[in-house]
Amino acid sequence: MKNHVRALVFDVFGTVVDWRSGVARDASAFLQRFGHAQADPLAFADAWRAQYQPAMEEIRSGARPFTRLDVLHRENLLRVLRDFGIDPATVPDGELDHLNRAWHRLDPWPDVVAGLTRLKSRFIIATLSNGNVALMIDMAKHGGLPWDAILGAEVAQAYKPMPEAYLRTADILMLPPDQVCLVAAHNGDLAAARECGLKTAFVARPIERGTGQKIDLAPEQDWDVIASDFVALADALGCD
Amino acid sequence: MKNHVRALVFDVFGTVVDWRSGVARDASAFLQRFGHAQADPLAFADAWRAQYQPAMEEIRSGARPFTRLDVLHRENLLRVLRDFGIDPATVPDGELDHLNRAWHRLDPWPDVVAGLTRLKSRFIIATLSNGNVALMIDMAKHGGLPWDAILGAEVAQAYKPMPEAYLRTADILMLPPDQVCLVAAHNGDLAAARECGLKTAFVARPIERGTGQKIDLAPEQDWDVIASDFVALADALGCD
Repeated sequence: MKNHVRALVFDVFGTVVDWRSGVARDASAFLQRFGHAQADPLAFADAWRAQYQPAMEEIRSGARPFTRLDVLHRENLLRVLRDFGIDPATVPDGELDHLNRAWHRLDPWPDVVAGLTRLKSRFIIATLSNGNVALMIDMAKHGGLPWDAILGAEVAQAYKPMPEAYLRTADILMLPPDQVCLVAAHNGDLAAARECGLKTAFVARPIERGTGQKIDLAPEQDWDVIASDFVALADALGCD
Repeated sequence: MKNHVRALVFDVFGTVVDWRSGVARDASAFLQRFGHAQADPLAFADAWRAQYQPAMEEIRSGARPFTRLDVLHRENLLRVLRDFGIDPATVPDGELDHLNRAWHRLDPWPDVVAGLTRLKSRFIIATLSNGNVALMIDMAKHGGLPWDAILGAEVAQAYKPMPEAYLRTADILMLPPDQVCLVAAHNGDLAAARECGLKTAFVARPIERGTGQKIDLAPEQDWDVIASDFVALADALGCD
């Protein structure tokens, strides 16, 4: 595979960055400032993330035109605040916007920058995230992620796992799908990419959802590459 | 301006890279291999570039759906070959494809990498070129251009100087137009950007069209910044 593939495209939330700790960090500061210091910031992060798929599903189903993730996150945030007993109307807009941008400030897993830097010497490396472009740019600047390009749902105007998200990304790269490899920590994402003809690389992130994580602990298909982290992925793909 | 602008978006052909020398270099090798060593490769580059605006105009006018620049370049190449007395049917497709990708292998002007690296520490830096994404990615890898994102005509689905090219780029960055500054060596591009509310920076490239260049030697409006090259631009914008 490694001599045929030209581009590696990456799932980001969970695969590249640790969204749960990052969101909880900012939620913790927010909850303290707004008199809810007793609330569990990890539960807040989980509750916010739980709204992610249903919000995109409205768009995937065609019930709503394509809307970038920052907007969905902001709508979902209002719901989560209410569930945590905070009336969003009592919070200044600037504070809500700042908290919403917690997703822009997520830290990469410790192996990511070293791995991506090596992978970049041999492959095009690009995002293929449901996160929007501005979010991905801020995150890359925050974490020093050396992407060649920011692609994904907003550029493709389709949320994963819709086939258009993968196929339009390959088309923009002017590559046949089998010269593009999705790197992801999620079996479902990889399965959808494989259906579209992309190559697949699984990198386990066993604490993405905390120490009690039950899903995506192991590969569920014979993915083209299976690696323990991005440095091991660079090794497996023959990068210096 | 420098404390208000968040993103610098760059014209690329002429402003960032020296398309004329680069295309001529590859055309020279091609013309020699196909028995036309007497042809002038700079004239070949100029003739190819002369087809650029008319090809895009067909799309801007709505007569043709959006088509990426690599496709237009390839069509234009066939015309230029015929004008130079070469029957494209006698040239293997792979050779034509390789020559067409001369635009992917253009070298940056000598000040570009140093200037962009400094600008990147303070601003989002992104392409806003009529060149397509795959072309821009290859060029960035070839020349070591440290873009934060590859944006432009293909992502906006509109060719400059259509307003949509500038306004959709600002929208994708989630910035109001006046927090985005176009950097370009072409007064016409800057004028169109200013009409859309973007800030403007002029960097003269007085030999883009050769030593006899007659246009774009000087700023034609009071652009927000005027700099002699990208290092001077970084100085003017207060970048370390």
